[in-house]
Amino acid sequence: MDPATNLPKRTHSRVSMLDPAAQIEIVAFEWVPDFAQGHVRDLRPRWACEEAGLPYRERLISVMDKPAWYFDEQPWGQVPALRHGDLHVFESGATLLHLGEKSETLLPRDAARRSEAISWLFAAFNTVEPPLMEYGNVTLFAAGEEWAKLRLPSLEAFIRTRLAPLERRLATSEWLGEALTIADIAMVSALRALEDSDLLAEHSATFAYVERGKARPAFQRAIADQLAAFARHPQPQMEGA
Amino acid sequence: MDPATNLPKRTHSRVSMLDPAAQIEIVAFEWVPDFAQGHVRDLRPRWACEEAGLPYRERLISVMDKPAWYFDEQPWGQVPALRHGDLHVFESGATLLHLGEKSETLLPRDAARRSEAISWLFAAFNTVEPPLMEYGNVTLFAAGEEWAKLRLPSLEAFIRTRLAPLERRLATSEWLGEALTIADIAMVSALRALEDSDLLAEHSATFAYVERGKARPAFQRAIADQLAAFARHPQPQMEGA
Repeated sequence: MDPATNLPKRTHSRVSMLDPAAQIEIVAFEWVPDFAQGHVRDLRPRWACEEAGLPYRERLISVMDKPAWYFDEQPWGQVPALRHGDLHVFESGATLLHLGEKSETLLPRDAARRSEAISWLFAAFNTVEPPLMEYGNVTLFAAGEEWAKLRLPSLEAFIRTRLAPLERRLATSEWLGEALTIADIAMVSALRALEDSDLLAEHSATFAYVERGKARPAFQRAIADQLAAFARHPQPQMEGA
Repeated sequence: MDPATNLPKRTHSRVSMLDPAAQIEIVAFEWVPDFAQGHVRDLRPRWACEEAGLPYRERLISVMDKPAWYFDEQPWGQVPALRHGDLHVFESGATLLHLGEKSETLLPRDAARRSEAISWLFAAFNTVEPPLMEYGNVTLFAAGEEWAKLRLPSLEAFIRTRLAPLERRLATSEWLGEALTIADIAMVSALRALEDSDLLAEHSATFAYVERGKARPAFQRAIADQLAAFARHPQPQMEGA
């Protein structure tokens, strides 16, 4: 027992890197609707901090009533944004690259492996994720609309062209490179848009890769801390509701 | 006159960085259909090399009959890929970042300005370009399909939410940062998907920004060299056509 908290003493691997005194600050939402909980993109730098043992603090803003000043920090009002001392970074890809520069665990220093990781990082954000964003529109946000029903088959076919090369790579490799990097954090996070889809299930190596990512203690701590913020902030009252 | 070529002597600014002896190699297609000419993504690292004065050579492959070995270099068989000595990079974003590391012209060394540029770089690839890729599907590849007609209004509305923050930024700034960087090369290139659309015309600062990018001598040299390769390689015969 830890005499200070009267709770079972936690091993290092179970201690989250969330620390109000940390130098790195990650902006996240204080609350989001159920369907988005566990999927908001601050999860990506949180996960990276947990993998690397980099302490971070969180700054929570309202998604329903975004403060006007936040658009000076993040032009689209999205999360995450990250501060590290005087540096300011937005876009989850840029936050991952920033954290990668701080930790060889996240991004190899060897030039060839570093180039490989950065190539896969951009592949996650610009080759794999874009059609998955549209898949979210088709199957979730616009699920009831006629165009969405008509669009689904060709979109699924296109997504398969994006998954096949990943499947080929992951059939012989646990991670995209020799060990987990920011590219895997980005790719697993993007692929989670297919968590409940046959598209992922039919690519068994890629499916196993996503499960392997989600089973990481660092991922578990990151998602627990995102969800903990939501639990502390009840759903806001809707005006006129 | 240049006695060696019997052509008017070119000033430095008119000399392309394309050089068969260069250390940097960019993979491009030898020929593509008309609608894609001037838009293939090797244009992005070509433009960056021209801005920075970095000599590069091109390696041309067939888009119609991609060599099987190329998928070991680029998992999706896309261009560009880039070699620089022993280093191998794929995804246009990764090629831009690699070139940025080689040239302060492309990516400031000052930490704050570097972070800003990398943030906008990822914004181009993951926030702005994804709906523009779908716009290409809706207005070009699937233009005759019922779903595409039904999808267009909501997609245009979403694209406006992506353009408004850019318009706000570009209303008071010539480039995304203090001077042109790889982020602008990526953003202008992505926005060219809207070249003929009212969506771009109705955002006057963003429209002017794209025109400013396209007017750069470096952009002009890059696109001329992409088109020159196509001109040297006639359209392949289609089997069974």
